[in-house]
Amino acid sequence: MKQLRGAIGVTVTPFDRDWQVDLQVVRTQAERLSDSRITGVFPCASTGEFPHLSFAQQRAIYIATKEGIGNDKTLIAGACTPNLRQSIACARLAGELRYNACVACPPYYYPHTQEEIFAFYQELAKASPVPVILYHVPFFTSGIAMDTVSKLMRIPNIVGIKDSSADMKRISHLCQLHTQREDFLIYTGTDDCLLPALAAGVDGNMTAFAASVPDWVTDIYQAFGEGKLAQAAAYQRRMMPLLAVADALPFPLGYKLVAQARYQLPMTQRVHQLAPEETVEIAQQKIEKLLRA
Amino acid sequence: MKQLRGAIGVTVTPFDRDWQVDLQVVRTQAERLSDSRITGVFPCASTGEFPHLSFAQQRAIYIATKEGIGNDKTLIAGACTPNLRQSIACARLAGELRYNACVACPPYYYPHTQEEIFAFYQELAKASPVPVILYHVPFFTSGIAMDTVSKLMRIPNIVGIKDSSADMKRISHLCQLHTQREDFLIYTGTDDCLLPALAAGVDGNMTAFAASVPDWVTDIYQAFGEGKLAQAAAYQRRMMPLLAVADALPFPLGYKLVAQARYQLPMTQRVHQLAPEETVEIAQQKIEKLLRA
Amino acid sequence: MKQLRGAIGVTVTPFDRDWQVDLQVVRTQAERLSDSRITGVFPCASTGEFPHLSFAQQRAIYIATKEGIGNDKTLIAGACTPNLRQSIACARLAGELRYNACVACPPYYYPHTQEEIFAFYQELAKASPVPVILYHVPFFTSGIAMDTVSKLMRIPNIVGIKDSSADMKRISHLCQLHTQREDFLIYTGTDDCLLPALAAGVDGNMTAFAASVPDWVTDIYQAFGEGKLAQAAAYQRRMMPLLAVADALPFPLGYKLVAQARYQLPMTQRVHQLAPEETVEIAQQKIEKLLRA
Amino acid sequence: MKQLRGAIGVTVTPFDRDWQVDLQVVRTQAERLSDSRITGVFPCASTGEFPHLSFAQQRAIYIATKEGIGNDKTLIAGACTPNLRQSIACARLAGELRYNACVACPPYYYPHTQEEIFAFYQELAKASPVPVILYHVPFFTSGIAMDTVSKLMRIPNIVGIKDSSADMKRISHLCQLHTQREDFLIYTGTDDCLLPALAAGVDGNMTAFAASVPDWVTDIYQAFGEGKLAQAAAYQRRMMPLLAVADALPFPLGYKLVAQARYQLPMTQRVHQLAPEETVEIAQQKIEKLLRA
Repeated sequence: MKQLRGAIGVTVTPFDRDWQVDLQVVRTQAERLSDSRITGVFPCASTGEFPHLSFAQQRAIYIATKEGIGNDKTLIAGACTPNLRQSIACARLAGELRYNACVACPPYYYPHTQEEIFAFYQELAKASPVPVILYHVPFFTSGIAMDTVSKLMRIPNIVGIKDSSADMKRISHLCQLHTQREDFLIYTGTDDCLLPALAAGVDGNMTAFAASVPDWVTDIYQAFGEGKLAQAAAYQRRMMPLLAVADALPFPLGYKLVAQARYQLPMTQRVHQLAPEETVEIAQQKIEKLLRA
Repeated sequence: MKQLRGAIGVTVTPFDRDWQVDLQVVRTQAERLSDSRITGVFPCASTGEFPHLSFAQQRAIYIATKEGIGNDKTLIAGACTPNLRQSIACARLAGELRYNACVACPPYYYPHTQEEIFAFYQELAKASPVPVILYHVPFFTSGIAMDTVSKLMRIPNIVGIKDSSADMKRISHLCQLHTQREDFLIYTGTDDCLLPALAAGVDGNMTAFAASVPDWVTDIYQAFGEGKLAQAAAYQRRMMPLLAVADALPFPLGYKLVAQARYQLPMTQRVHQLAPEETVEIAQQKIEKLLRA
Repeated sequence: MKQLRGAIGVTVTPFDRDWQVDLQVVRTQAERLSDSRITGVFPCASTGEFPHLSFAQQRAIYIATKEGIGNDKTLIAGACTPNLRQSIACARLAGELRYNACVACPPYYYPHTQEEIFAFYQELAKASPVPVILYHVPFFTSGIAMDTVSKLMRIPNIVGIKDSSADMKRISHLCQLHTQREDFLIYTGTDDCLLPALAAGVDGNMTAFAASVPDWVTDIYQAFGEGKLAQAAAYQRRMMPLLAVADALPFPLGYKLVAQARYQLPMTQRVHQLAPEETVEIAQQKIEKLLRA
Repeated sequence: MKQLRGAIGVTVTPFDRDWQVDLQVVRTQAERLSDSRITGVFPCASTGEFPHLSFAQQRAIYIATKEGIGNDKTLIAGACTPNLRQSIACARLAGELRYNACVACPPYYYPHTQEEIFAFYQELAKASPVPVILYHVPFFTSGIAMDTVSKLMRIPNIVGIKDSSADMKRISHLCQLHTQREDFLIYTGTDDCLLPALAAGVDGNMTAFAASVPDWVTDIYQAFGEGKLAQAAAYQRRMMPLLAVADALPFPLGYKLVAQARYQLPMTQRVHQLAPEETVEIAQQKIEKLLRA
């Protein structure tokens, strides 16, 4: 089995003027990542705007990504949908396309009780041909309580959790679950606190910057791994102003602009944006300046 | 233009064993409503489980509903999607099928600022061939602030708001907007407080019980309209135990069981449910008993 | 026992320049209310700013209020404190001063579980020489879940609940508790939805306007009681613009300005206010204009 | 001026059977801390249960603490109250008793806008004879938005912020404020993520464990300072099970039991507790076992 630990880049989805996915750009973006030091790639995450994609579009993105990135990297697919049936379909797609794992958030739009969330993952794990990773993203859909995680980690086909809460008290206690199951993977979903999360004991991150500025992210891992804490902290600080600019725009527009500026690839069009034109332009200029610095 | 005031029934969506929509049941459900005293019908609302439906399925449901209910009733379509582009497509579908209005919630999954929500509705209103009704449902997606409603009601093609918050302080102040635009429609989306909402001055309701037990709902309107308050209160109280049972199940399962029991039509299957079998069976028995009472 | 149903006016607390309570103003305010049609009075509620008052100050306010209002009106005391011990002391004070009941919110600052909230009220009811009224005010402190209310209403010395949530779905289901204990009192704490709450079946209200513009409130009761719904609705609408102005200021400043303008008594001083001077002055002018209208 | 960086222990308040503060225990607790490596001590914080203490009691605690701990340690006082007037009185008390700084949360019970919170701190800083530290504790009272912190840090007498949110995204961006004002102090208020917070760049912590198990906390600082990350992580992990037990009880009972077990001093009595006796006893046994390990 491929390595799952480390930096997983969540890629953005390039829409053309007519809101169709530009698969050539998807492929090129993936090619650029093949040379980086990241562990793997995860298209169609929240940053990849899965709520705007049809099943067929997701399929095409997974194929183009795999073509672009080659065989060395770990491939993670999404199974984030409004219901169990669709999430199972996504997990099966992941298996069919030989992806290494899938990540599923609790069904969205309707809130769900912990009892339902447990049942959802239990059924998904049963039906999925690939390992399932939980996804705690309480700002977008129902969260997964600590107790529910504890119970779900007893299911072998559930292999980890991506936690995008940035709640470091919670993440620190999640990392204590390693005493119960050493290979249970804990990922942070927040670039802004990658180094703190590594200090807390996470196994990896699944974030936008791991795909758009992969060196900035893997530099942190390397310095951290070599015990050079001051260096790691400097690398983390390097990312902060860029994150502040990206986060001030409607999510995930700022992250798309970072990828666009970094790879000089068209990721977003004026027509897709609810934010005022001027706001976007100012952000774009700041991003370009910060990337050159 | 057809009447928009009064009771609008939001119908449930019958899935068969394979999660396909049973259009025959949709049609029959609509036929039953053609004889009721409700103003109109709104398929594919939250209760109609739009997040689980493809665009093609929604289209088929709108057509079958129209066939079933005949020409006398007002027809409301949904335009609740994760983004502006899809909501515009739904609004155009409503126009094509000669529906009388469409209802759109702010885009879901990602939270949105009020600035983005304003831009969303402004663009939707511009593109929609039918009148647009705002939808405030803060438990499921970003809410629409009072100030944003005030600004949006200046756009002629935005004709009202469905408010499912049950926040009667908010709804009471919403009803004050009638002083600025008399024909701006305020609907409650909560059966549990229909009579209080009428007392607050709403123009109508868009709720599940208006479709599943329409007489119980229109009895309240009639008594209220005739100034028979004690009678209206008794009619409201008649609904409360049934609502308590329906609401204790994962939404909208309880409401589907009510429609199923009332119309003796298959609305939901064991396979669709994350709730424990026993819980569902007990609820089902209570519902049948309460409907017979 | 004195009547507990109907309009209970929660009075504001006049502080002088040095932040001492002006007891003469307290007494005069109470005298003005003795001629009104309200059922009773409740000083030292949230509107009465209990968090800013020492025990001795509360005692002095209760005495001055009783002196001012005479023997005909019902007297309600507060027992809202950060802990059980202090709430019991307040309840005993209520007994000593011959007040007719006390109102207690769950202990504030620290959040509490429903288990702790149940234990808190159980102990308070045991120790209190006067009947205890629960107080659900989720914007200021831990809320009391419906299940907890159901359990607590089995304790005879707990006689009702003041609900300031304006959540009319909740309040409507609370009113259903009358089927289990007919004399359990449900009060709304929100002037903005008094008429809707009466339609839902509440027994009374405990609000600021019942003390500052008592006629406006009791007019609603009278029209509602006589089945003149259109009249009642007009009376409710009369209050809305004034409530909108009062509510736009830091709570309870707006309500103090209303009482000040109505009774021509000094209720608040520049020195007490965190809001900008100009904002306060504009509000003051609007309030005076609306009261004259 | 005394050192403010590093570990600040927030002490618990021992109440005797009659809910009076046992000042002898306060003094002894402080004496024990005089030999530890912590920077200073902060009585009457949230963990010290300020909402249950009168002004006179707080004064007595500050005096007894100073007597016990001697002259080497930094002394921090609380100024957490429901309003500006009382917070100013506390700040003046801190000055009178020669404490080195005071910590104030936004006024509690009533929620406050950011505009009011800014005005509150501006006035407090003006009136306070000692440096003021902001206190962000969003679970207990209104939070302080990042923008408000940015504006407040321009006031010289505001010297830092204690952040008890454990939101590491926020804390990481707070630490970026060092680029604007290098000596602005950022403290975490959460023992569970002390090491991650140090990695994020905080200047210190203000937490219960710094007072009850000071060596466990200062070991983390020392290893972190020497660049021994694996060692620091092991020290952090040592605290986690004890924190999990402490946190499962109503706050701050679990932390009082830890101090009680560690110092063999009576900190809490059965009569003070809303939690079931058995729950408390089981927790007590676990705590003793974990402290011996």
